[in-house]
Amino acid sequence: MPPGEPLASRFCERFGLSVPIASAPMALASGGRLAQAVSAAGALGFVGGGYGDPEWVERELALVDPASIGVGFIDWAIAADPRAFELALARRPRAMFLSFGDPRAFAQRARAAGCAVFYQVQSLSQLPWALEAGAEVVVAQGSEAGGHGMDTRATMSFVPEVRDWLDAHAPATLLLAAGGIADGRGLAAALALGADGALIGTRFWATAESLAPDGAKQRALAIAGDETRRSRIFDVLRRKNWPREYGFRAYRNEMHRRWEGREADLEADPAAARAEFDAAVARGDFDIANVTVGEAVGLVRDLPPAAEMVARLAREARAVLNRLTRVS
Amino acid sequence: MPPGEPLASRFCERFGLSVPIASAPMALASGGRLAQAVSAAGALGFVGGGYGDPEWVERELALVDPASIGVGFIDWAIAADPRAFELALARRPRAMFLSFGDPRAFAQRARAAGCAVFYQVQSLSQLPWALEAGAEVVVAQGSEAGGHGMDTRATMSFVPEVRDWLDAHAPATLLLAAGGIADGRGLAAALALGADGALIGTRFWATAESLAPDGAKQRALAIAGDETRRSRIFDVLRRKNWPREYGFRAYRNEMHRRWEGREADLEADPAAARAEFDAAVARGDFDIANVTVGEAVGLVRDLPPAAEMVARLAREARAVLNRLTRVS
Repeated sequence: MPPGEPLASRFCERFGLSVPIASAPMALASGGRLAQAVSAAGALGFVGGGYGDPEWVERELALVDPASIGVGFIDWAIAADPRAFELALARRPRAMFLSFGDPRAFAQRARAAGCAVFYQVQSLSQLPWALEAGAEVVVAQGSEAGGHGMDTRATMSFVPEVRDWLDAHAPATLLLAAGGIADGRGLAAALALGADGALIGTRFWATAESLAPDGAKQRALAIAGDETRRSRIFDVLRRKNWPREYGFRAYRNEMHRRWEGREADLEADPAAARAEFDAAVARGDFDIANVTVGEAVGLVRDLPPAAEMVARLAREARAVLNRLTRVS
Repeated sequence: MPPGEPLASRFCERFGLSVPIASAPMALASGGRLAQAVSAAGALGFVGGGYGDPEWVERELALVDPASIGVGFIDWAIAADPRAFELALARRPRAMFLSFGDPRAFAQRARAAGCAVFYQVQSLSQLPWALEAGAEVVVAQGSEAGGHGMDTRATMSFVPEVRDWLDAHAPATLLLAAGGIADGRGLAAALALGADGALIGTRFWATAESLAPDGAKQRALAIAGDETRRSRIFDVLRRKNWPREYGFRAYRNEMHRRWEGREADLEADPAAARAEFDAAVARGDFDIANVTVGEAVGLVRDLPPAAEMVARLAREARAVLNRLTRVS
């Protein structure tokens, strides 16, 4: 494999990419500039439609060519209020990324609009929905991922087990690995595990174009991978009523440590803590406000432009594969 | 890389292996026959000295050539009763594998006896002990691993972050990835992540030579990777007084589900549950007794001889790497 060759995969072929990477549709962080930069660099960028704020989605989609990017939504949130989903669909994005709930009705709408459907799973039990939704791409998200997810499975064995299930039930369905991938070693590992590519969150959260607060990004440079936790704490503080099965992984800062093991107390009487949290968000105090990163934050040591990050991931992954086959 | 070539690595060179694999020193499952079979097949086998029962260790070490295998112990258990550790040391095994506590005093004894020291970590914070112990090999164990461990880190990002730390502090120290690895895809991924090899537990637990109960092994063939959990439940039932920071991952069977979220009640009044558990162990009822497997159990579909397993892992990993560099 010459150093300049693309890292080919079925995912690259299907979407015309030179690098088998998609950037995660991170709510509030993955805006139009980030998605467009990722797609322009040869990967597939996603706008994070998140909870479905129509104004936010409209503003960010105005910054992109919809035909070159995807949009992601939270199923249970758009079930409650589908306006932002409908607005995004009307722009005819290349792909629609659905997570955290029953995707079937939304997937049908998205496919009818010509979008490729991505469906993210955190357990094997969710795979039948991927088939019923007609998903072209399944994203297997391990527990080490930042933001919302489950504690059920870690990436290392989840990806090959999902691949085996898809081979038995829907072999043409593509598979992306998500969770814990922030450099070319992780990308090469994802391909070795049987994925057709990697969905990368934290590493793109920590780029120049990400809409995450500058203070949070600066703080992330000093956070080790041991220092994140998954819990309901920041969801309660942010007034997000997530279904019980999902937790939110973020930096285990002072505020998180204060409420660990006392989530029920926080939920019973959240007013004072929410006021403290809101004030910390306003002044950018990340001892109290959330820094939304996964375990891979320990591999993040700079805040480059997203295009440079895509090129670096590809270059590193090629070097890893060359090294392994040279010495092997 | 021709199909018959060995999967070379620094770990292979240092220990004269043809496959960069060690079998985990699983207490009660990794006896002498399993360790000897793994080493004879070109990998490095470990006897699981576990909690330090001198009779068990003496019997199992009588089945092996100590110069070709290693022995593993639980630091906090041998600190309380070092007899089995001393007995093993007198046989001069090739390697001594220490986990779950301060390894320094035991490592010094082991190095003086000519053993290579392996030290297993579950968080970055434990790495300085590896250096102070003079460990030649660090094992980075992700949360998906079966048996004892921590929830802090999953394998995918933990391995490269540990590798970066070792490169900065002790670049000659070798690194094995542990947790979630049960086939050649996982072995190839471990090497891609920067490990010099893989420590494999569950997949060798489910071989012909493993001393795990036959009924437990048969049950494992039907367990999906989603169906394991880490908790204190089976430690309380087995009267094992583990430090609070460690949990035990096993099949989430009926007994486990019954006590989830009620661990404090179980610890406060364990007598009846222990009697029920003991009776289930005696009759081989694995709805109640523990089946000690990690998330990778979902990739286990047969119970081959250990030597066949070593050969299969190597063959599969070579095929994965050949595929990636052919299409890449």
